[in-house]
Amino acid sequence: MRWYVVASLLTVLTSSQGILTTLSQSNGGYKYDYATVPFLAEVFKLLVSSVFLWREMQNSPPPKMTMDWKSVRLYPIPSIIYLIHNNVQFATLTYVDTSTYQIMGNLKIVTTGILFRLFLKRKLTNLQWMAIILLAVGTTTSQVKGCGEASCDSFFSSPIQGYLFGALSACLSALAGVYTEFLMKKNNDSLYWQNVQLYTFGSIFNMGRLLMDDFRSGFEEGPWWQRIFNGYNMTTWLVVLNLGTTGLLVSWLMKYADNIVKVYATSMAMLLTMVLSVILFNFKPTVQLFLGIIICMMSLHMYFAPPSTLVDLPLTVKPVSESVSEVPSERKTDS
Amino acid sequence: MRWYVVASLLTVLTSSQGILTTLSQSNGGYKYDYATVPFLAEVFKLLVSSVFLWREMQNSPPPKMTMDWKSVRLYPIPSIIYLIHNNVQFATLTYVDTSTYQIMGNLKIVTTGILFRLFLKRKLTNLQWMAIILLAVGTTTSQVKGCGEASCDSFFSSPIQGYLFGALSACLSALAGVYTEFLMKKNNDSLYWQNVQLYTFGSIFNMGRLLMDDFRSGFEEGPWWQRIFNGYNMTTWLVVLNLGTTGLLVSWLMKYADNIVKVYATSMAMLLTMVLSVILFNFKPTVQLFLGIIICMMSLHMYFAPPSTLVDLPLTVKPVSESVSEVPSERKTDS
Repeated sequence: MRWYVVASLLTVLTSSQGILTTLSQSNGGYKYDYATVPFLAEVFKLLVSSVFLWREMQNSPPPKMTMDWKSVRLYPIPSIIYLIHNNVQFATLTYVDTSTYQIMGNLKIVTTGILFRLFLKRKLTNLQWMAIILLAVGTTTSQVKGCGEASCDSFFSSPIQGYLFGALSACLSALAGVYTEFLMKKNNDSLYWQNVQLYTFGSIFNMGRLLMDDFRSGFEEGPWWQRIFNGYNMTTWLVVLNLGTTGLLVSWLMKYADNIVKVYATSMAMLLTMVLSVILFNFKPTVQLFLGIIICMMSLHMYFAPPSTLVDLPLTVKPVSESVSEVPSERKTDS
Repeated sequence: MRWYVVASLLTVLTSSQGILTTLSQSNGGYKYDYATVPFLAEVFKLLVSSVFLWREMQNSPPPKMTMDWKSVRLYPIPSIIYLIHNNVQFATLTYVDTSTYQIMGNLKIVTTGILFRLFLKRKLTNLQWMAIILLAVGTTTSQVKGCGEASCDSFFSSPIQGYLFGALSACLSALAGVYTEFLMKKNNDSLYWQNVQLYTFGSIFNMGRLLMDDFRSGFEEGPWWQRIFNGYNMTTWLVVLNLGTTGLLVSWLMKYADNIVKVYATSMAMLLTMVLSVILFNFKPTVQLFLGIIICMMSLHMYFAPPSTLVDLPLTVKPVSESVSEVPSERKTDS
């Protein structure tokens, strides 16, 4: 499969996630415990990956699987980063309002680019850097609170701690992504074996979170395993399946494509969700959504289009030193 | 002088124009007849150009001056286009509100690019086209009505005639610019001689406008020449001088640079005015202004930076057909 097919699928599914989650609410709230959704999604991913791994093991040659503890112990780290990230997110929200929080979330696009360069040593051209910044600007533009919207907090009026925690949150989110890419690419182990390790730890950490919630509430509603499917309906199961599937697609992208592809897919998904909301939920289309879409499309093209289609590279065989001087436009600078 | 020095000067002066005009108002209105300002600016430009032309004529060799009627008759055309443009603007405003009108005004950036390509046959790279669209998007972004602003009309709710007149207005504005560039570059006549022709017709047309206003009001306040300086103060004179000077700089750019440079200068001026308003008049800075500035700066860099600084052109002497295949990033697309 080509990376852009997987990325497009990820865009569509991530976008449906927002719509499905909205549809799974009743009277503006969840009838089920939302914390059970990521847990079940981890279990789903673990099951699917196990089945695929088992099938691979029937084939010859058998899949490459590094079982060394030195390798296995690297797999809980993404879960640990996400755990810290969740707590930092919580801290951020005590300082800033939700719309500032949402706008700062776009910073992770830029931090992903930076960590991608620093830790994975992947070089980006200046145009690609500009594309990444534009992607963050574009997603932010689409989120600018319009005229007449209820919440009207100013972006520049939060305490400094809010911005610092927001920046830390963006760094942690980027770190988790970049680390996962490093993990998936560090050897040519079977993707499914890597997934099994990743999701085993993921399931354990999510289970731990459910247990923590139980302890916090003093087991008032009983332990999580007794009420895990409470309030579940068809849509809730679709939310779980969807979250699990997008997780598997992200894993695939981390191994065979990269973090930037993932960032583009999820950013496009956010815009697609907004467009679908306009259509499905009769939301009012805003100029800023329209502008944000144009900016992100430009960014996508700038990042992925071959440079030769963007600038006029001379088509004849010539020394490059000469050809460069030919590229600039014919602007007259005399007088 | 280099074009970017003139363009920067144009940016600063155009930006001060907005500030000065605001300062020249008293109690939110003009004490003087605003229509006298462009007329006096035309006369100022005519005087300055005449002096420079006279000085040039003392030198040897004398400046090149085509006096042929076939050439002279082309010079009133920009004034005629602006006259039609003003009326179309007026018609547009009967269909759309001022904020939609302001946002549609950015369309002239794109139409200038298109007419620049069609009539002046100037080629732009795909990246430069994207830069032009981004410039329009960036200026529009900065103008998006923020949360809590008084006027709250929706952009998408005007009648179709409004958008059509807005598009026509953008085309006429672009046409005037592109035609002037054609006029200034069609031969190597002295810039000052070309200016003298341009501003003679400009003065006449503006005088005609003042006379029309007098007829419309039935000469209630007497003919325009008797009350031309009524209500003028120091700031009003600065507005006139500033408008005249920016006009002269635009003429220079039309001859020695081009319309796109002018469009960038005036767009940057708009952003600069907004930033200065935040500082001088204690306006609230908005996220959309901040985003608009980033987008326009990116656009500026994309348009003017040498392509070799944007994409990795190979530095060694190699056939280009080979080098192109080396440029794309090392994304893995296998499996």
